[in-house]
Amino acid sequence: MKTNILDTSISGHTNLLCLLGHPVEHSISPRMHTIAANHLGLDYAYLAFDITEEQLPAAIDALRLFRCRGCNLTMPLKHTVIPLLDELSEASRLAGSVNTIVNEDGKLIGHTTDGIGFIRALEDRGCTVAGTKMTILGAGGVATPMIAQAAIDGVREISVFKRKNATFQETVQFADNITKTTDCKVAVYDMADADTMRREIGESQILANATNVGMGDDTASLVDPSMFHKDLVVFDAIYHPAKTTLLQDAEAAGATIINGEGQLLFQGAASFALWTGKEMPIDVIKQTCFPNLLA
Amino acid sequence: MKTNILDTSISGHTNLLCLLGHPVEHSISPRMHTIAANHLGLDYAYLAFDITEEQLPAAIDALRLFRCRGCNLTMPLKHTVIPLLDELSEASRLAGSVNTIVNEDGKLIGHTTDGIGFIRALEDRGCTVAGTKMTILGAGGVATPMIAQAAIDGVREISVFKRKNATFQETVQFADNITKTTDCKVAVYDMADADTMRREIGESQILANATNVGMGDDTASLVDPSMFHKDLVVFDAIYHPAKTTLLQDAEAAGATIINGEGQLLFQGAASFALWTGKEMPIDVIKQTCFPNLLA
Repeated sequence: MKTNILDTSISGHTNLLCLLGHPVEHSISPRMHTIAANHLGLDYAYLAFDITEEQLPAAIDALRLFRCRGCNLTMPLKHTVIPLLDELSEASRLAGSVNTIVNEDGKLIGHTTDGIGFIRALEDRGCTVAGTKMTILGAGGVATPMIAQAAIDGVREISVFKRKNATFQETVQFADNITKTTDCKVAVYDMADADTMRREIGESQILANATNVGMGDDTASLVDPSMFHKDLVVFDAIYHPAKTTLLQDAEAAGATIINGEGQLLFQGAASFALWTGKEMPIDVIKQTCFPNLLA
Repeated sequence: MKTNILDTSISGHTNLLCLLGHPVEHSISPRMHTIAANHLGLDYAYLAFDITEEQLPAAIDALRLFRCRGCNLTMPLKHTVIPLLDELSEASRLAGSVNTIVNEDGKLIGHTTDGIGFIRALEDRGCTVAGTKMTILGAGGVATPMIAQAAIDGVREISVFKRKNATFQETVQFADNITKTTDCKVAVYDMADADTMRREIGESQILANATNVGMGDDTASLVDPSMFHKDLVVFDAIYHPAKTTLLQDAEAAGATIINGEGQLLFQGAASFALWTGKEMPIDVIKQTCFPNLLA
């Protein structure tokens, strides 16, 4: 007979956590949060629901109705959800992005832990961010929480590179707002300006790719290999493939490389802590879900 | 490290089952269905949500939105839910009661397994119902699914005893409808008519209490001890206390007695089979949730 801890722990009090987004069925989050809750003996179940932007208001109503402790949001809902919430964390407000809702007795509070995941993934590899200069490639939904959290966590200066298209001015406003409201100075540059990119990367301790260039079968990289230096920590939010061309080139140049798996783990850990008040058992989750992250 | 089968089986594909009602937090159903699903390696989570009649339409919308495979309904929702569904099973239609919804690709079908639970609880104790005469005390929400299923399952004749109050005529219509649409003849009598009750019980092989008389601290019984006979099977839908005064008196008279625990188990098993297409592992559930039912 197969029995386990949940056999005895699940009850009429078990609370629902979930992931909303589209698509969601291949997400690691249900597995990660279920293992963590089981391990700590916490009475939560975490499921994934495929929800479109049109369905989101009804799904948020259902969270309230079922008194769910909270949820994660993924594409395409991280921005859409904002007007449906009662409060936003500082990072969510700065980033214009919510990946975690906490239901405080019917009051829904939006957080973003994507940036925390980024910072903790760096720290997990021994890289301290406070006081550094950082170059970030991209200014979309992946980038803004990373930029906002880096600013909150004491990064001194962030140089954002972005294509000079219709939304460039929006990014400049986003950067100006962070510069105004934190101690971090954020500048926005044209992705096509190779000389400026070379200079900014040269002055940076950390370089992060927050675009989808290099994802899946794409072998492109936004950075010329000659721009890396061996004191640089190069982070790529992509984890499929595990080593993008950007990371391969950076490694060849002697830089420290980190892919997006740690960000995925640590954004989950930060959400878990918001819901449960407990630390996710990181070693257990690395062993069961992220074996590549084991030292 | 505590790990278990759910550690590996829960995923983005895990489907939500739930119990809706008020109150629900002390229900055994989450435990029973979770153990059964885990034991069979099926990818379901079963939670309880406290939902009032006013909240029910929104909860049903949420079931559709989240593509839940189904739910159980308990008080006070078993009748209220009917207009919100797309189809009803024969037993649900006859009983005017739904305790189980199956979501067939967005079409919600209402079933009642409370009567099946009653019949299978009798069968589990070696009592065959087809061809028998049955006396049932009560005509409320507990009684109607039992009466409807007994009629469907070939009981020859059912004598229903009910207080002669404002809803007596409604029960007569309910009885007439079953008499018309099944091969079972259902008659309704005044609960205060002791002579008729004595005669009907005397002619019956099975007596069932479907009222709440005898529940909890109530030591009353609707049946005079002299009415029992030793060939009678006496069932009480109540299981707190495990042995009501009715069952104590019946046992003293040499009758076979069965309380409501088996009905609770087997209604769950029938719902489980409707959702999953698999038989609930009865022995496992008896061992883990209903030790009193082990032979």
